[in-house]
Amino acid sequence: MAPKEILVGIIGVGLVGSELVSQILSIPAARNPFKIVFLSSSRKALYDTVTSPDAWKAALDASSDPADLKAVAGYLQTLVAQGSGSTQRQAVIVDNTSSDDVARLYPEWLKAGVSVVTPNKKAFSGDKAVWDAILAASAAPGAGRWLNESTVGAGLPVINTLKEMLGSGDRVKKIEGVFSGTMSYIFNEWSAATPSVNPPKFSEVVRVAREKGYTEPHPADDLNGADVARKLTILARTVSAFSIADGKGSLPELQSYEDVDTQGLIPTPLEGIKTGDEFVERLPKYDGDFERVRVQAEKEGQVLRFVGVVDVEEGVVKAGLAQYPVTHPFATSLGGSDNIIMFHTERYSPRPLIVQGSGAGAAVTAMGVLGDLLKLA
Amino acid sequence: MAPKEILVGIIGVGLVGSELVSQILSIPAARNPFKIVFLSSSRKALYDTVTSPDAWKAALDASSDPADLKAVAGYLQTLVAQGSGSTQRQAVIVDNTSSDDVARLYPEWLKAGVSVVTPNKKAFSGDKAVWDAILAASAAPGAGRWLNESTVGAGLPVINTLKEMLGSGDRVKKIEGVFSGTMSYIFNEWSAATPSVNPPKFSEVVRVAREKGYTEPHPADDLNGADVARKLTILARTVSAFSIADGKGSLPELQSYEDVDTQGLIPTPLEGIKTGDEFVERLPKYDGDFERVRVQAEKEGQVLRFVGVVDVEEGVVKAGLAQYPVTHPFATSLGGSDNIIMFHTERYSPRPLIVQGSGAGAAVTAMGVLGDLLKLA
Repeated sequence: MAPKEILVGIIGVGLVGSELVSQILSIPAARNPFKIVFLSSSRKALYDTVTSPDAWKAALDASSDPADLKAVAGYLQTLVAQGSGSTQRQAVIVDNTSSDDVARLYPEWLKAGVSVVTPNKKAFSGDKAVWDAILAASAAPGAGRWLNESTVGAGLPVINTLKEMLGSGDRVKKIEGVFSGTMSYIFNEWSAATPSVNPPKFSEVVRVAREKGYTEPHPADDLNGADVARKLTILARTVSAFSIADGKGSLPELQSYEDVDTQGLIPTPLEGIKTGDEFVERLPKYDGDFERVRVQAEKEGQVLRFVGVVDVEEGVVKAGLAQYPVTHPFATSLGGSDNIIMFHTERYSPRPLIVQGSGAGAAVTAMGVLGDLLKLA
Repeated sequence: MAPKEILVGIIGVGLVGSELVSQILSIPAARNPFKIVFLSSSRKALYDTVTSPDAWKAALDASSDPADLKAVAGYLQTLVAQGSGSTQRQAVIVDNTSSDDVARLYPEWLKAGVSVVTPNKKAFSGDKAVWDAILAASAAPGAGRWLNESTVGAGLPVINTLKEMLGSGDRVKKIEGVFSGTMSYIFNEWSAATPSVNPPKFSEVVRVAREKGYTEPHPADDLNGADVARKLTILARTVSAFSIADGKGSLPELQSYEDVDTQGLIPTPLEGIKTGDEFVERLPKYDGDFERVRVQAEKEGQVLRFVGVVDVEEGVVKAGLAQYPVTHPFATSLGGSDNIIMFHTERYSPRPLIVQGSGAGAAVTAMGVLGDLLKLA
C-alpha cells in the first residue's frame, strides 16, 4: 500500500490533549504517519507543524490567531490537497474538549472529508438530531470517518469490541457495567465485598474522593448519574446503528441521554445546590438513608454498585443502584476506580465477555484516542 | 473514500471456516465489502464466488480442482488487477487450518501484496525464521498486512489491545493469564474458590472434560501446555516487535514456542502414551500426586490455575501451575472454559487491564477472524 500521512488537528490542549501530543510525538519517525498541523485551546489557535513536545505550548500562547473552529476543516483539506505524489494524505480532527458547541461541528467536518476522533461524549449522547446528522454525513461517499472509543471506558476496548461483535452478526442481549470511575471508587470503598467492622459513612467517602480529585469539583455532577447515562446512550445508539443481525427485542430511541431511566444519588433537598463545598457540608445529614440501604444489602450477602444497563431484550436503558452477591465480579474483581463492562451476547452466552480496568485519566484516555488514530492509519 | 472490495480466499472449511463463510455472507450487501472468491479444503479447491451459505459445500465437493495453495495468491492478485475504475480492490487469504505448511506460505503471500488473517498459531509461534520472514515481508512497500487477533483468546480483544498499548507508547510490564479454555475448565472444576466437601479427583475432571469435547481427543495434547506456550510466544514476540517505548528489561528471543519455560501436567510415566483412551485409563494412578498439591494450596487459602506469564521486567516467559488467593480474579471471576488475560502496564498500574470470556469455539473464533477482516476494510 502507498505510504499514508495523516494530518491531525487537535482541539483542546488540557490534560488529555497535552498527553495526546506527547504520545503522537513519541512514535518513532520511521513508523509515524501522523503530522500535527493545528492546535487550538478555547481561545487561541496555532497553524503550524508541531514537532517538539516542549515548544508548542509557548508557541500557542504567543499566537495571535483566534480559535476559529469553523475554518479548521477547510484549512486541513487545503493541506491534504497540497499532498505530493504517491503519499495518501487524509485529515482528522481530534476534539479533546467536552464542548457541545464543538461536537455540533462534526457533521460539517465529516461532510468535508475530514475524520473525527474524540473522547467527547456530547455529540453521541446529546440531541438525537446531531447523532443522526453524524451518521448521515459519514455515510456519504468521500466523507470522513468518526471513531469514539475513548468516550466509554477511556482506553479500554469497549466500543470497538462492541462494533466487531455487531459487525460480525452477533446479537447483543445485555450490556451491564460500572461505567464511572468515580462511582466505582465510592462504592468499592463504601460497600466492600468484605465489609469492615467500622464501615465509613457515605458522605465521608464522597468527601475523601473529592479531596483526592476523583470527583468533579461539585460531586453532584457525578452523583446525578448523568455521566453514566451519556455512556449508556452511546452504547445503546451504537447497538442500534451497527447491528446487522435481526434482533429479538429493540432499544428505545433516545432523544438524548436525558431519556435514560437514571436514578441519581442526590438527596432531594440537596438538588440545585450551587457549590461543591456546600454540598459536601450538607451531605452527612443523609448518611442514615444511605446506610439503611447498604446494611439491608449486606444482610442479604450483597454489595451495592452504581451500574448502567443496556438491556436489548427488555428494551430498557437505565442507570442506578443495584445489588450484587459478594461473589459477583462487580463485588470481587473491582477495585480502585476501575470500570467493568460485561457483554452478554448470543455468542458470549451464558458467560459474558468482560473488559475491566481504569476508565479515566489523561494517559489512558489519550491512549484510546491514539488507538483510534492508529485505526485510521 | 473510494468504495472498497476485499476479495477473500478461505483455506480450511472445518468448523471455524464454515462459520466464517456464514458470518461473511450474513453481512447485508449494502455494507458488505467482502467477496469470497476461493475456498479450499485439504484436498479440493473451489475457484468461484460464494454467495450462498448452503450451496458452497456441494460445489466444493464436486470440484475437480486440487488444493494448490501456492497458486492462490497469484489467482487473487489476477482478480484484483481486473478490478474496475474507482473501487479499491485488495486480496486477503484466511487460513483456518492449524497447518505448519500453510503457515510457511504467509511470507510469499504478503510479498505478493495479499493480506493474511488467521487463527492459526503456527506461523507466529513456531520457527523464528518464519516469524522474521513475516515481519520482513510485510514491511516492504506494497506488501499485504497480517492480522492474528484470534490466535490468542479467539474473539476476545487481546492482540489488538496489546498492539494499541504498544503503538501508543505504553510499556508492558507483565501479561498474565489463563490462556487455555481446556485448562480453565479443568482447574475451575478441580480447584474451586469455594471447595466442595467431596472434591473430584483430577483424573475424573479430565475424563469428563474429554467426554464433553473440551479436550483434544488425546488430553495430553492439552495437559502438555504447548498450546499455552504457543500463545505466550505470540504475545512475547508481539511485545518485542511492536513496542515503541524504551523498555525496562527485555524478553528472551524465542526460537520457537519450545523455548518457553513450560511445566506440563503429564506424569512422567505417561509421557509418550499413544492413545487418549490409554492415557485417561492410567491417569487415576497419579491422582494422589495432584491431590497433595491442591490440598496444600487449599490450606493456604489458595487455588491452583494453569497460567501463562510474559514478564517483560524479569525477562521471563513461562507456563505452568501457580497458586492464587481465593479472592483473586483467577479464582473468583473465572468459570466455564473462560480465558482471562491481565495486562500490567505503565499506564494500567497498579491495577491491570483485564479481558475475560470464552476463548474457544467456532462462533467466537470466526468472529475474531471477521473482526480482523473488518479492520482491513
